[in-house]
Amino acid sequence: MKEKRTLMLPGPTPIPASARRAGADEIIGHREAECDELIEEVTEGLKYVFQTTNDVLILTCSGTGGLEASIANTLSEGDKVLSLCTGAFGERYATIAERYGVEVDRIDFEWGTAVDPEVVEEKLAAEDYEAILMTHNETSTGVINHPQPIGELAEKYNALLLVDAVSSLGGIELKTDEWGADVVVTSSQKALMTPPGLCLVSVSDKALAATEDSDLPAFYWDFNRAKDRYDRDSQTPSTPALSVLYVLREVLQEIKEEGLENVFNRHKVVAKAIREAMRAIGLEPFVDDEIASKTVSAIKLPEEVEFSALSSKLKEDYNVYVTGSKGHLKGKVFRIGHLGNVSRTDALSTVSAIEMVLKEEGYDVELGTGLEAAQKVFEEERK
Amino acid sequence: MKEKRTLMLPGPTPIPASARRAGADEIIGHREAECDELIEEVTEGLKYVFQTTNDVLILTCSGTGGLEASIANTLSEGDKVLSLCTGAFGERYATIAERYGVEVDRIDFEWGTAVDPEVVEEKLAAEDYEAILMTHNETSTGVINHPQPIGELAEKYNALLLVDAVSSLGGIELKTDEWGADVVVTSSQKALMTPPGLCLVSVSDKALAATEDSDLPAFYWDFNRAKDRYDRDSQTPSTPALSVLYVLREVLQEIKEEGLENVFNRHKVVAKAIREAMRAIGLEPFVDDEIASKTVSAIKLPEEVEFSALSSKLKEDYNVYVTGSKGHLKGKVFRIGHLGNVSRTDALSTVSAIEMVLKEEGYDVELGTGLEAAQKVFEEERK
Repeated sequence: MKEKRTLMLPGPTPIPASARRAGADEIIGHREAECDELIEEVTEGLKYVFQTTNDVLILTCSGTGGLEASIANTLSEGDKVLSLCTGAFGERYATIAERYGVEVDRIDFEWGTAVDPEVVEEKLAAEDYEAILMTHNETSTGVINHPQPIGELAEKYNALLLVDAVSSLGGIELKTDEWGADVVVTSSQKALMTPPGLCLVSVSDKALAATEDSDLPAFYWDFNRAKDRYDRDSQTPSTPALSVLYVLREVLQEIKEEGLENVFNRHKVVAKAIREAMRAIGLEPFVDDEIASKTVSAIKLPEEVEFSALSSKLKEDYNVYVTGSKGHLKGKVFRIGHLGNVSRTDALSTVSAIEMVLKEEGYDVELGTGLEAAQKVFEEERK
Repeated sequence: MKEKRTLMLPGPTPIPASARRAGADEIIGHREAECDELIEEVTEGLKYVFQTTNDVLILTCSGTGGLEASIANTLSEGDKVLSLCTGAFGERYATIAERYGVEVDRIDFEWGTAVDPEVVEEKLAAEDYEAILMTHNETSTGVINHPQPIGELAEKYNALLLVDAVSSLGGIELKTDEWGADVVVTSSQKALMTPPGLCLVSVSDKALAATEDSDLPAFYWDFNRAKDRYDRDSQTPSTPALSVLYVLREVLQEIKEEGLENVFNRHKVVAKAIREAMRAIGLEPFVDDEIASKTVSAIKLPEEVEFSALSSKLKEDYNVYVTGSKGHLKGKVFRIGHLGNVSRTDALSTVSAIEMVLKEEGYDVELGTGLEAAQKVFEEERK
């Protein structure tokens, strides 16, 4: 018998079984009243998770499509934007803006460190920028960048704040309105534990005002088309990914029942358990605790172990999926995703499998050491 | 007990139950070998339905997104294109091109008529066009435009032929390669009887060559990013709508087993049965038989019957879904979709429900007249 699949990727993430089954329901017409209700319910559920009273638009595309939409809707050719890069996904956001003829100033923070608001303010004070692009949770390095201080700077210097929250929203606190995030982009297959196919985008009044001046082309993901259609009849301009919406409706209900604070805390505890477990077996987390992501942990590989060996044995022998890293971290760091429908048991299975594979690969580890460290985190939490 | 749902829309369409269940399978990693296999299988299945050896790219968006991608990838600002408009969807394709700063010459054929290749040739002979935009099956009027003569003209006048095949592909013959269609766009929720969320796009070498000269912005649905990624490791650049792909794999297998010719013939027979049934009860099809769509039938409403009454009673009393029409046909024409997983029993349920509602609404109809006409079509077919 094959072990149960333990999908510990930074997305796509496992889907609760009951929600998964909802995805197999019969298809309904996207211009029918039952679809209007579906989209209203999902939109309300999203506003709760986004902590916003802004419009939250439902686009059928991946997170990358939503990031592109945030550029194409709010900016113009030749506009200057400030891009806060702390890893591969920050770079991607900048690349998308450049593809649209936007002039991008990058601040390249060293991989493994977080955005430093002081450095950002220096740039903003020296030059005018239409927008700031930031990555809330840099998946490639496992770093959280706090949007709040950047939101304050965006307000002070009258720039839009566009936030890539693809791998954070619903797993790590993001107070969209309170922190002044004008556009927040996430996708269904991360902490929202829904199949890929939907991108959810909150848009502030300031961002909507910016769409009026934008001269970049956008039709399919035109924010105003989406907003107007929702305001008119709770529908989407094009046929949405209905079966994915069925799942998302269930998941949003589950998130509401658990309570957002409890969801965030669950992510924190599992993240801490995994980091402590890795430390206990001598593996160093790639980033400092204060800036460590609660949805994905980047861990330095011991020199004697090849990532490909670790990865393939975890899959073949334990059905546990982790992933490598990108750029110059490739082969040196591996990443464990723990977001959405991820539990203590998943964390323990993963730690156990890693201990056993590392030992087989000749790394010096006493079995159970990491597991005990993880259990102690869980024990502490229950006190 | 509520009647079974009979979804007779021009999309989204009903999904075979076994395929629907596949959509509830566990989520897999989109960079894992099992996903590569999934995407390869789907791509091969699509090539069979597209009747092409061209690349067929899998995009996660609706058909509208794919149409936008066809423009953004192959054209440049100021390029001249010829748009063959026979209804609302032809107009939409032209609108998308205009949004990108492309200069669009429309030929507006009267709604309810088909593209006339002679008129098209006059324009092509008089002026240079980079591309021709055409709608294979104009859903708003129920008209088929034959791509073959337009493909010949595109070759003769050295223009790209971009084809909106959203509501035709897999239901009506489209010989992509033989007829010279450079880009063909369809979506999952029509004749491919899969949930909405995927857009499938075939791209000829001529179209790929055109991407080199294009100066329009595209990142998410950049054809070359999609092609390169598929060529490299059978993956997609962004996370695809996996649960929708699970369904599509099953459906493509079913289409292959039935055989494309049989699938097309089934659509023809059901379309004919519905048209004959409507005629038998005195309702006139909106378009002539020779150009009538095999996936959607537009039928003139009797003057004494309001569309809203017909539509709501069909839903409430029989759980049968039909739709109205657009533009100046609104309220005068209703449309019955019969594509994908639509059978003779669905056609009969629909005809029966229409007869009964029309009678209740005061229209003079002898019950069973339409049903008999439909049966005779089926009987003829079985000989």
